[in-house]
Amino acid sequence: MKKTDLRKALTFIEPGPVTLITTFDGKRNNAMTVSWTMAIDFDGHIAITTGAWNYSFGTLLKSGECAVCIPPADMAETVVGIGMVSGADTDKFRKFSITALPAEYISAPLIAECIACIECKVEDYIEEYGFVILKAVNVWINENASDNRLLHAVGDGTFTADGERVNLRERMKEKLPPGL
Amino acid sequence: MKKTDLRKALTFIEPGPVTLITTFDGKRNNAMTVSWTMAIDFDGHIAITTGAWNYSFGTLLKSGECAVCIPPADMAETVVGIGMVSGADTDKFRKFSITALPAEYISAPLIAECIACIECKVEDYIEEYGFVILKAVNVWINENASDNRLLHAVGDGTFTADGERVNLRERMKEKLPPGL
Repeated sequence: MKKTDLRKALTFIEPGPVTLITTFDGKRNNAMTVSWTMAIDFDGHIAITTGAWNYSFGTLLKSGECAVCIPPADMAETVVGIGMVSGADTDKFRKFSITALPAEYISAPLIAECIACIECKVEDYIEEYGFVILKAVNVWINENASDNRLLHAVGDGTFTADGERVNLRERMKEKLPPGL
Repeated sequence: MKKTDLRKALTFIEPGPVTLITTFDGKRNNAMTVSWTMAIDFDGHIAITTGAWNYSFGTLLKSGECAVCIPPADMAETVVGIGMVSGADTDKFRKFSITALPAEYISAPLIAECIACIECKVEDYIEEYGFVILKAVNVWINENASDNRLLHAVGDGTFTADGERVNLRERMKEKLPPGL
């Protein structure tokens, strides 16, 4: 993976893909499948909704760090597999043959097979809603991913891969954020 | 449009499409393009990030109602157009030739050309982050939309339409929410 402009974090969250969020509890890497995410500004802040039902949740708050990784569409079965087992009793990196790579600013790992990984620090937690507010501190992209289509969870057990791309940059140029 | 199970609201938000959110200020219908949305539970709650930069924002909080409508991918140019002008000086329904239909529980309109419209009540506002917490109260679907692909905003002026669909319901059946 190679580093890219921090402002590109938005372009991996705004389209609404399912994500794999990694944590490190001091002993072991873990990953959780999270589809409830939202871009919230042009400055690299991201909201996610999670809670105690995810084993990673405690580690996320305690360590204050995670990597938000964007799996390619052809990883759909792995993404579901990771969502169906618990890090409490499973080494998901081993079980699902995904590769942990060291991040630069956080102890949680990148996932080598993903299209992109966003190193994040936890900035806030809104307990009433289970919102964790993350700040991107580093963005990595993988130009050799097995598939460059993002994967979107429909919520009913089906998923959609990105299809046709539409370019309306010219129409939007007055409102495009700097760097994008 | 015809009404469907309220629990289906999730399936239009979780995949992360760009939305058109309608409001009614007592005199005129308005619509805004919002891509920063997030499913937050299985009970029809949705978070969106917005603020005073959207003219509709004041009406949304004051009226406490909106419809979150899901445009088909072939409406991409209209979606961008709606995002580039302000309801302060433009009747967007007229300018973009979209059709307002009466909702059942709210005064804001449905948009006839959309794939689905979710009637929502505002339940909370988290000012620090511009989060508006909505509760779906009614869901309409349009089986005759011009295109059944959702549209995803990448954030850089490009968009992706839904492509290949992957069905992993069998793998996920223990975790699928009731009704989906």
